[in-house]
Amino acid sequence: MSARYTGASGEDSLVARYFKPLAVALGAFGLDDDAALLKAHGDDTVMTTDAIIEGVHFLPDDPPDTIARKALRVNLSDLAAKGAVPVGFVLTLALRDADDAWLAPFARGLGEDANLFGCPLLGGDTVSTPGPLMISITALGRVPPGKMVHRSGARPGDRLVVTGTIGDASLGLDILKDGAVAAALADDAAGSALLVERYRIPQPRTALAKAVRDHANAAMDVSDGLAGDLAKLCAASGVSAVIDARSVPLSSGAATLLSRGAVGIESIVAGGDDYEILCAIPEDRVEGFARDARLAGVAATSIGTVIAGAAVPKFLDAQGIEIALPRLSYSHF
Amino acid sequence: MSARYTGASGEDSLVARYFKPLAVALGAFGLDDDAALLKAHGDDTVMTTDAIIEGVHFLPDDPPDTIARKALRVNLSDLAAKGAVPVGFVLTLALRDADDAWLAPFARGLGEDANLFGCPLLGGDTVSTPGPLMISITALGRVPPGKMVHRSGARPGDRLVVTGTIGDASLGLDILKDGAVAAALADDAAGSALLVERYRIPQPRTALAKAVRDHANAAMDVSDGLAGDLAKLCAASGVSAVIDARSVPLSSGAATLLSRGAVGIESIVAGGDDYEILCAIPEDRVEGFARDARLAGVAATSIGTVIAGAAVPKFLDAQGIEIALPRLSYSHF
Repeated sequence: MSARYTGASGEDSLVARYFKPLAVALGAFGLDDDAALLKAHGDDTVMTTDAIIEGVHFLPDDPPDTIARKALRVNLSDLAAKGAVPVGFVLTLALRDADDAWLAPFARGLGEDANLFGCPLLGGDTVSTPGPLMISITALGRVPPGKMVHRSGARPGDRLVVTGTIGDASLGLDILKDGAVAAALADDAAGSALLVERYRIPQPRTALAKAVRDHANAAMDVSDGLAGDLAKLCAASGVSAVIDARSVPLSSGAATLLSRGAVGIESIVAGGDDYEILCAIPEDRVEGFARDARLAGVAATSIGTVIAGAAVPKFLDAQGIEIALPRLSYSHF
Repeated sequence: MSARYTGASGEDSLVARYFKPLAVALGAFGLDDDAALLKAHGDDTVMTTDAIIEGVHFLPDDPPDTIARKALRVNLSDLAAKGAVPVGFVLTLALRDADDAWLAPFARGLGEDANLFGCPLLGGDTVSTPGPLMISITALGRVPPGKMVHRSGARPGDRLVVTGTIGDASLGLDILKDGAVAAALADDAAGSALLVERYRIPQPRTALAKAVRDHANAAMDVSDGLAGDLAKLCAASGVSAVIDARSVPLSSGAATLLSRGAVGIESIVAGGDDYEILCAIPEDRVEGFARDARLAGVAATSIGTVIAGAAVPKFLDAQGIEIALPRLSYSHF
């Protein structure tokens, strides 16, 4: 364990070197205080926390800047799904050692994304661990009073709309692990690289936060697999759903793998790490949401309908027959 | 690694079983949403984050309820030092496995402390790790607008006041590790047990938050060693300080060890994990602070004076001679 007593604190100099430059918000006090300050404002505050861990959410040899980006972006994805605009974040970093070759690009990637998404570093804690790297981020966002979008507002008749494409990240992970997907897509280096990038660098739909607030009855971040997350949204809302599996939006890489029989749709809709938004939108707001999504440059695809009932949502194939889903999502335990 | 794909999510049932019962705040939504909600209010929000890690901040065989309490209390200590009243917290738990014999007392201790300090669970993330257990907590507090107490407000002439007693936790850790302290206090089981308890269960000075706000020019949480933390407060304030080492408040166990020559004052003032509050208080407010501390049942001891200058604070012995401090505080790297 690298924890030790020292005269001049290595921890302080690590923080000063890599993270102080990121603490640009007034309320961060240059990381020189015990806590950050967020001045009183008239909005509601939305708070989310997500950790990523080496060997689980990222791989030991993933580029450090992508690890930082993923750690922040998975939290930004939650905020966007709640209709919230980012305010800032705190970072807990558990490191085996203070390795400049790793920390420099990590801090650079984190700072670039903090700028890009308007979500500055407000504080943090750096600790040593003999185990895998872990990055835990808690992010705050704001919404006008009463406007946070919940999982629980879906009503029968609502359209289910999902952003981006589904399943790519889990396929990308399989490529990085040299699994069956890597072999099936061995002739398509560019397609493979895109899937890997989808695993390493999620695209939080921050640009859609207002559209979600304006149009959706319910929304959530799809992070553990579309099927399982849809089941959670339906359970929270006391409804069920029917999905047309053919309409689930796929990247060209995922579509190729599906057409080659390398993966089935049942594993695509259960793959984790999508970080897309799933919304339940009343029929008369679907066009408005689609327009706002187009303006934001984000794909939004209608995949099914909310129905009354308590059954686990059904995914139907081209013949209208229910697809058996051996698992719904990723679980840590 | 215990992470795996499952049909019914073990992670969800773990959260449902142990942590949902703690999510009593309205804005926690029973942990059934992507984020927590804090309704708009007129106060400033104070945000702090601290992680504790197995083998560093707690020992593998520490009772699970004390680990939970420590994880929350180290954050409550930061809030109190800023003059903030707790609002709630989010929890990131990195576990090797979902062990009921460990999780049940952990959740019970956490829930009891959340009640005791009025700081409810708002959300969290549970992940698997092959490495040491880690508990990261981000806590929010509130202060009236503009009233957060900073490290940077100390002025020459201010009295330096510290709550509780100093050095106990690091002595307790030495006992748990069967070090020299354990041998020197082998004849005093009760005294040893008290030092161990000080390591395992910090006493956040939440009851003094208002007194800190009302009287202190500057304050911080003493967590990495009094000497090093005082140096940080002085650096942030652009001042120096002189401490009368004889006035540093000691528990009877620490005093016994000092009188037996088992430890020196230089290691007591550099030991970590005190979780007391260090304040700089203008002369004319010292009596007011002392009165409020008495009413709150918290010891508060004047240990020295802020002076002009940029030198590292001096600790003087009975002869007024500066005590050499080979190290100032605990550092992870």
